[in-house]
Amino acid sequence: MRALPITATRVSTNRPPQPHNVDTLDRAAAPAPRVRFTDAQIEMAHGAGGKASRRLVEGLIAPSFANPVLAQLSDAAVFSLGGTRVATTADGYVVKPLRFPGGSIGELAVNGTVNDLAVSGARAHALMATLIVEAGLPSDVLRAEIETMAGAAARAGVPIVGGDTKVVEHGMADGLYVTTFGIGIVDQRASLGPERIATGDRVLLTGPIGDHGITILLARGDLDFETDLRSDTRTVWPFVDALLEACGSGLRWMRDPTRGGVATALNELVRGSRHGIAISEECVPLRSEVRGACELLGLDPLHIANEGQMLALVADDVADAALAAVQALPGGEQAACIGEVRDTPAGTVIATTAYGGTRVVDMLVGDPLPRIC
Amino acid sequence: MRALPITATRVSTNRPPQPHNVDTLDRAAAPAPRVRFTDAQIEMAHGAGGKASRRLVEGLIAPSFANPVLAQLSDAAVFSLGGTRVATTADGYVVKPLRFPGGSIGELAVNGTVNDLAVSGARAHALMATLIVEAGLPSDVLRAEIETMAGAAARAGVPIVGGDTKVVEHGMADGLYVTTFGIGIVDQRASLGPERIATGDRVLLTGPIGDHGITILLARGDLDFETDLRSDTRTVWPFVDALLEACGSGLRWMRDPTRGGVATALNELVRGSRHGIAISEECVPLRSEVRGACELLGLDPLHIANEGQMLALVADDVADAALAAVQALPGGEQAACIGEVRDTPAGTVIATTAYGGTRVVDMLVGDPLPRIC
Repeated sequence: MRALPITATRVSTNRPPQPHNVDTLDRAAAPAPRVRFTDAQIEMAHGAGGKASRRLVEGLIAPSFANPVLAQLSDAAVFSLGGTRVATTADGYVVKPLRFPGGSIGELAVNGTVNDLAVSGARAHALMATLIVEAGLPSDVLRAEIETMAGAAARAGVPIVGGDTKVVEHGMADGLYVTTFGIGIVDQRASLGPERIATGDRVLLTGPIGDHGITILLARGDLDFETDLRSDTRTVWPFVDALLEACGSGLRWMRDPTRGGVATALNELVRGSRHGIAISEECVPLRSEVRGACELLGLDPLHIANEGQMLALVADDVADAALAAVQALPGGEQAACIGEVRDTPAGTVIATTAYGGTRVVDMLVGDPLPRIC
Repeated sequence: MRALPITATRVSTNRPPQPHNVDTLDRAAAPAPRVRFTDAQIEMAHGAGGKASRRLVEGLIAPSFANPVLAQLSDAAVFSLGGTRVATTADGYVVKPLRFPGGSIGELAVNGTVNDLAVSGARAHALMATLIVEAGLPSDVLRAEIETMAGAAARAGVPIVGGDTKVVEHGMADGLYVTTFGIGIVDQRASLGPERIATGDRVLLTGPIGDHGITILLARGDLDFETDLRSDTRTVWPFVDALLEACGSGLRWMRDPTRGGVATALNELVRGSRHGIAISEECVPLRSEVRGACELLGLDPLHIANEGQMLALVADDVADAALAAVQALPGGEQAACIGEVRDTPAGTVIATTAYGGTRVVDMLVGDPLPRIC
């Protein structure tokens, strides 16, 4: 799950800061653009992970929480703790329904938090979970989620070391909300950060997109559409581990494209930078059911949430080895190179379509699929 | 705020484990008593921090999350991370109303998490916050809480390094729920744990009890009762720091008595142990407004939540110095020694009343004041 950390240091950088030349400043060290938040009330779109979420965080939250370490949108905060480089992440889960084909809120909560650490180059060391329960929730529903969380944590090899439980009156929540907190130690092989991307870097994607979002949509029964689609929720750490091993410092940046999808993740990467990204739509792995549902609903698969896929930017000279390493892992067989980093148009994500045209791929606007995670 | 961690190692102990003699086993290393959770659905009392909460955690949550480190109810989980002894805590806040005399949900969220770390002997190093917002919440309400959190964090000297924001439909939350996660480094002077208490230890309390709980009750307007009462929400770290300095290893155990109050905190300490605690009701600092409200409502002030008070068990020979150290701090003037550790009755908290009688002080049962934090 994408956290929206208010501040986070970059994992590492090999370049010294050059404060007198704005063009060569590390992006992570550059002040965030000034955003004003003038909306009168909070709407669903502010939680969707797209433009409205970004405006809420940058315009309302980040200015108040400003730390010496400057604001940067990232999946986890990375800092030194007693001399150890750690990553921490906090994620809220409000998915509806609580259970769906391939997963449940408890499984998302564990995997999503493990994944936020993983894409920051950190293996999860401990999790904590806080439950907000609506009075009247059948105990068996809660028990099922607790057992699911325990199973997911065991598969990810991370203990759940604590938590908190609060109960609110019937009608003051929707069954169960879960928040998880994770802490991990940053892998010494990791040297990651948006400032490390360079022209010619390749964009890898670990598998087909949109399975999670469309599964949730169908599980709500809003669409009369029968498929075998399942959420892709899983831990991506094995992919991260393989990439760290295969690429060394050629691994530049990673992100799990959850709320807002691949389009939003890539836009956040290049926004305000001197690089752009070009992807080829034909290269993006996509199941026919997801394609069909998106066409029916007028949704762009690049905006649909994933819970077990990962984007990685890697140097061109290690891209083949990186792709082979991911494809060799169970569940990574459909990994693909979907694009590359270019000089122009800077700050923009473009896609070449199956028909040979080119279109601008924007961040998610609005919230076509609320409470997806 | 009391977290209900599923497992936590003790902060430290100077006694080697003696696995062949159950009587001398560290309490922290003893298996938790087996509890069965058979309630059909979750009720408000399961979130109240008393007996029902305990049954939920021990009967339903802890068995699934079982770790190699055995289950112990504590305010924070303590473990080694890259060779550094750290404490982490996770707390959910659902207080109603969001703002009340002396504080607000955002202030509770920061102070409560800082305090859970503090009573584990750890100074907060970083916080993360997750917001679950009801669609339609006026942005100014959210802005006020963000600013309050930033102010409380600044006063506690801890950065908020990240978080997450989710929005649910109107009617699916009650304005705003906040969860906070904290991580701190355990102070090297700390040698704390329930297994360290000994007969003759003294029970210190930093100030008058019940202010928070009764303030919330009155802020809801359920009682026609005018007072100047304010929540006591504040960070207790200065008291912890002073006690660590004054007592050394004579400081045995600390707890901030939030949900469930002083009675529940002390019962949790001695439950199943070979020690009991005797307190003197006359020695417990209590404002007349709190006493009056409790008498009117048939509540025991020892069950009422506090958000800025702390219990400390200290060795008899350092008790005077400990009390003087707390009383010398701003806000600690009313600190008192309220009781002592005894051999009998083991596992029980008793109180001598103003009339010279003795009564058993039980944990909180039910939820007389729901959504207090």
